[in-house]
Amino acid sequence: MNNYSPLRTAIAGVSGYAGGELVRLLLRHPRLTDTPPILLGRPQDTDALPISLTSLHPQLTGLPNADNLELSSFNWKQLQRDAVDILFLATPHEQSREWVPLALAHGIRVIDLSGAWRLHNPHHRAVYQLHDADPFRASQLQAEAVYGSPEIHAPAIAKARLIANPGCYATSIILALAPLLRANLLNLECGIVCDAKSGVSGAGKTPSPTTHFMHAADNLSAYAIFGHRHTGELLEQLNLTTDQIQFTPHLLPIPRGILSTMYMRLNQPQTAAAIQSVFDEFFADAPLVRVRRSPQLPQIQYVVRTNFCDLGFQLSTDGRRLVVISVIDNLLKGAASQAVQNMNLMAGWHQAEGLL
Amino acid sequence: MNNYSPLRTAIAGVSGYAGGELVRLLLRHPRLTDTPPILLGRPQDTDALPISLTSLHPQLTGLPNADNLELSSFNWKQLQRDAVDILFLATPHEQSREWVPLALAHGIRVIDLSGAWRLHNPHHRAVYQLHDADPFRASQLQAEAVYGSPEIHAPAIAKARLIANPGCYATSIILALAPLLRANLLNLECGIVCDAKSGVSGAGKTPSPTTHFMHAADNLSAYAIFGHRHTGELLEQLNLTTDQIQFTPHLLPIPRGILSTMYMRLNQPQTAAAIQSVFDEFFADAPLVRVRRSPQLPQIQYVVRTNFCDLGFQLSTDGRRLVVISVIDNLLKGAASQAVQNMNLMAGWHQAEGLL
Amino acid sequence: MNNYSPLRTAIAGVSGYAGGELVRLLLRHPRLTDTPPILLGRPQDTDALPISLTSLHPQLTGLPNADNLELSSFNWKQLQRDAVDILFLATPHEQSREWVPLALAHGIRVIDLSGAWRLHNPHHRAVYQLHDADPFRASQLQAEAVYGSPEIHAPAIAKARLIANPGCYATSIILALAPLLRANLLNLECGIVCDAKSGVSGAGKTPSPTTHFMHAADNLSAYAIFGHRHTGELLEQLNLTTDQIQFTPHLLPIPRGILSTMYMRLNQPQTAAAIQSVFDEFFADAPLVRVRRSPQLPQIQYVVRTNFCDLGFQLSTDGRRLVVISVIDNLLKGAASQAVQNMNLMAGWHQAEGLL
Amino acid sequence: MNNYSPLRTAIAGVSGYAGGELVRLLLRHPRLTDTPPILLGRPQDTDALPISLTSLHPQLTGLPNADNLELSSFNWKQLQRDAVDILFLATPHEQSREWVPLALAHGIRVIDLSGAWRLHNPHHRAVYQLHDADPFRASQLQAEAVYGSPEIHAPAIAKARLIANPGCYATSIILALAPLLRANLLNLECGIVCDAKSGVSGAGKTPSPTTHFMHAADNLSAYAIFGHRHTGELLEQLNLTTDQIQFTPHLLPIPRGILSTMYMRLNQPQTAAAIQSVFDEFFADAPLVRVRRSPQLPQIQYVVRTNFCDLGFQLSTDGRRLVVISVIDNLLKGAASQAVQNMNLMAGWHQAEGLL
Repeated sequence: MNNYSPLRTAIAGVSGYAGGELVRLLLRHPRLTDTPPILLGRPQDTDALPISLTSLHPQLTGLPNADNLELSSFNWKQLQRDAVDILFLATPHEQSREWVPLALAHGIRVIDLSGAWRLHNPHHRAVYQLHDADPFRASQLQAEAVYGSPEIHAPAIAKARLIANPGCYATSIILALAPLLRANLLNLECGIVCDAKSGVSGAGKTPSPTTHFMHAADNLSAYAIFGHRHTGELLEQLNLTTDQIQFTPHLLPIPRGILSTMYMRLNQPQTAAAIQSVFDEFFADAPLVRVRRSPQLPQIQYVVRTNFCDLGFQLSTDGRRLVVISVIDNLLKGAASQAVQNMNLMAGWHQAEGLL
Repeated sequence: MNNYSPLRTAIAGVSGYAGGELVRLLLRHPRLTDTPPILLGRPQDTDALPISLTSLHPQLTGLPNADNLELSSFNWKQLQRDAVDILFLATPHEQSREWVPLALAHGIRVIDLSGAWRLHNPHHRAVYQLHDADPFRASQLQAEAVYGSPEIHAPAIAKARLIANPGCYATSIILALAPLLRANLLNLECGIVCDAKSGVSGAGKTPSPTTHFMHAADNLSAYAIFGHRHTGELLEQLNLTTDQIQFTPHLLPIPRGILSTMYMRLNQPQTAAAIQSVFDEFFADAPLVRVRRSPQLPQIQYVVRTNFCDLGFQLSTDGRRLVVISVIDNLLKGAASQAVQNMNLMAGWHQAEGLL
Repeated sequence: MNNYSPLRTAIAGVSGYAGGELVRLLLRHPRLTDTPPILLGRPQDTDALPISLTSLHPQLTGLPNADNLELSSFNWKQLQRDAVDILFLATPHEQSREWVPLALAHGIRVIDLSGAWRLHNPHHRAVYQLHDADPFRASQLQAEAVYGSPEIHAPAIAKARLIANPGCYATSIILALAPLLRANLLNLECGIVCDAKSGVSGAGKTPSPTTHFMHAADNLSAYAIFGHRHTGELLEQLNLTTDQIQFTPHLLPIPRGILSTMYMRLNQPQTAAAIQSVFDEFFADAPLVRVRRSPQLPQIQYVVRTNFCDLGFQLSTDGRRLVVISVIDNLLKGAASQAVQNMNLMAGWHQAEGLL
Repeated sequence: MNNYSPLRTAIAGVSGYAGGELVRLLLRHPRLTDTPPILLGRPQDTDALPISLTSLHPQLTGLPNADNLELSSFNWKQLQRDAVDILFLATPHEQSREWVPLALAHGIRVIDLSGAWRLHNPHHRAVYQLHDADPFRASQLQAEAVYGSPEIHAPAIAKARLIANPGCYATSIILALAPLLRANLLNLECGIVCDAKSGVSGAGKTPSPTTHFMHAADNLSAYAIFGHRHTGELLEQLNLTTDQIQFTPHLLPIPRGILSTMYMRLNQPQTAAAIQSVFDEFFADAPLVRVRRSPQLPQIQYVVRTNFCDLGFQLSTDGRRLVVISVIDNLLKGAASQAVQNMNLMAGWHQAEGLL
């Protein structure tokens, strides 16, 4: 037994891709070796519970603590008695919207990986078609929710009861643009183009025509032009108008990884060294963002199955046009490892604990 | 307009992979340029009919005759009045088992791409769990059905009313083994091992956990060991016992193509030249089987999107052990183009018409 | 024997991907069934010649005329005596630059698939580092060379002696932008962003770290930002300045296909119907360009192994921002089938002969 | 600083796939956090040295200890002065054969990942075409070399000076067959068929026509039938004759992973429970082998990027025929993590230290 102060975690949604990665990360987290996460079964699966973790994720068999873990039925009182500190929700957004008030009412802090609590502007949130049992309470919680981007909101995250873990596309774009916008370098009249490409795990585990191998393999397709639901996160977090940012996602024929190519014009000519400094300073204390030396550019392979976001850029010879490349593993820095990073901050630990 | 005698075809099951390939082949068939196939809609889709062909298969847009083709509701009397000669069924086996008696009763010959009519031994057929409205009539038709392997049963195919188009795995294996068995070269006491690998299209178009990109990509898995339903075809067509052939399929992370690796022992030592002759002679008049010169071996890429089966082999230095490699495109020689080959024979045309 | 006027063709560069597709297309071209192409071996391979076509492209085995074709050594006098009308060069650009003057001097028209003769502005052409034996003659021929985009330059192509077949990326972008620029709809002050993605065959057949499976698979990478050599084609053919178009290519983990996503702003608000009309009218007589109905968008799978370019678009709700998607098979409409289309025009045939 | 006894390691061949995985494993090994490995540069690269580790493997950037590591030129005296205990050679077999005598002469134990020292029978070893400067010394060392299969030779490994780390294919097959052969269950008269399939990383990092994306993707091919150089390992380690085992490798279109399907006949009928016991008992103390419960079968995805070998089997209903499936990550349990497992045994640590 180690002599760390114990933290008790629980996870709902372990059967999905992000939930599976999350349990893997928690199992090997050095602060949690004595307190493996409690795994919450889905209410609709109650008759089948308990379900062993390794039957859902056979590749975890034989890892420390994994073989005995089970998804079980649960109730909020019991979680309270078990002294659960932090509940991770890797559940559909409707489910998250329903459970967050209940968890908080029982004194359990929540890191929600869905889109349910990310958007403060009701107009943006409308794409999720959320229905709240207690709209007044929900709006209070919404106001309290902290957008879980540790490189931007670390102090608020540390104190938060409710973390809205960012969307995967949004993570890759916000980390690339926030430094440049804060430095006020961009000419926004022409808008920023964000051409993003994601692997198939981003589409979730439910079989569908889109995720069928025959559709996804040897193919590339754009979708949700002018209408992807991560757009609201970009507008709110970057403080931009619809006219100032154009985000188009594409479905890549790979399992994991996002690469976002971003095009922008600068207010006035810059040198590559100046741009490099802006990124370096912004991420000086960010252990999970790696800024590459221009003209080197990151690729998806650099980050797949890692917890990093890699950034790189190139500048036109006249110093007026900038292309930035951002890559993440959509299931890790775009979901599960960013959630663990938030947990670390909430627990007062180093933000990269268990992630390097 | 050409001066060929017209042949009228109809297809049910156009929305699937094999059905889609079939309509593409018929549209470009030189004997059918004036008589595009009639496309039969699914009874359960009646309210949505007609459905344009190109909405199901956008890649066919702009090809001759394709833009105006539609799937329509149908009835047997109407097909009879339309003088349909040959009906292709690319439908689930239950549907094929139900429709074949009706089609034949209306004077329409059938080429069935499902497994419904391939197996004469009721014990083998049990895996399909077929239920016949008129069991006596069904058993008569079963006795009449011809296994549509043109390299083996061409004369019977030419006269048949009902063709059971072979399974994809079975095609790749039967074409490789039939010459060797007919020449009585094999020592069957040790059995023949058939290790077969197929692309994902073989699992059909319905989304499922197995066909999800995340399961199929970057993976390989064996399945249905000792129990794949194509086994019955091997036993009946090759006249072998369960103990004499071991067939194991695997799911490959590619869209199309089957490669079967077959291992066998010879009754007595042979030379590569002797084995080569056996294959060459067997397929001397088979324009869609290409026998490679040993020690050259075919690969899946040689045949994907072609109508060929490629065969190759290597012999141990002592001349006693033989490895044969067989490759096909599972949707073409393993389904649609073999069906067209059967149609050609039934119409009295050259078997490779429209397939080279 | 058919009663078409015979056309005699020759191809250099058959061993590469585009050359292989080209010979396949010519072998099945209905006007050329009696005159298969002459295949020119590489001078550096003379000792190994003749080489059979099917040893280079085993998948062509058994196709009409293919089995007897060989790559042979050649000289210009002989090609002249053989009455070769059109020579296709699927050779490296240095080779094309050297051979074109020789071919034309012997009365042989040339369709060059390399980048050697595409660029009229010497500054743009500098990226190819070309060295001409007779610079004066070369500049005369350069002035005479016609950019082989049949949807744009058909009349000039019909009469040309020297066709510079367009680059693959350039084809996908020029076909999308030419109609909008001709209609004067675009606000060029903010520039056009062209985010393009290509399969690995675009990188050629020579093994390299970039084309290694381990680098290309499960990956995506941007390259040649601000510097890809197809940029000059865009500037010259679309009459744009460097500041008005930003082209970034990416390497996709698929064998074939290009998808280009293009972002632009409009001079004044437009309706989708108006944009649709612009495309429809521009391509009314273009059998190899398929304009999809907005908001439908093409995908790479729609065009892989077809001779088509597919275009689609979506407009922002305020009618001011436009996203256009263009897809081609880089080896076909981006190379070999566009070359055949040019040949058809040069021979006075329908431009899509043998391509539908 | 931890209080473990320090172990000093060095690695040659870090630029390759297995070497890259090896350095990653050593960097995160809990016993080696204070003693990162010394990385030996290639003699032919001397002018370019030092080379930073992260320039070769950008995905390692930011990991503990990785950023400052460099490949440097070296000499044996210096390694001796640096008190290197164990040298890993992830070098070509010619290089390994040359360096092993030098390393041992300087008191440095060696774990060689190449095939140079695996084979004791000179006839088997001939496939490697090895030339020894001092043949007598080489034969002494060959006799001393221990085949590094920890599940089989743990006691000898612990004391060895020279470990020949097993081949990847051989690992997957030997672990599956050793328990059955030891239990004397197999009828060897009919031979064992081992149909193995490997991802492309097994072919190494040097670009070649075989590893070109266009050849490997969407393809499957058999190679080296009756002649793969891992065959000798099977014969020697399993004590079989050429006639008793047939091993055929195939190239899979995936980056990593091996699946071997093995077919065998039993001396007398067995139950699945009996077979299960044989495997369970054999691997009772083997933390890196996971025996699945029949009829469950492992897939490649279960083990990719893990250090495990997974085994599963199914038995025919008559209990006479057995199919065994074995999967590993060819770069990990098939190379780098097996090397670390051997290092752990040589250092007297738990064999799975740093591997779970």
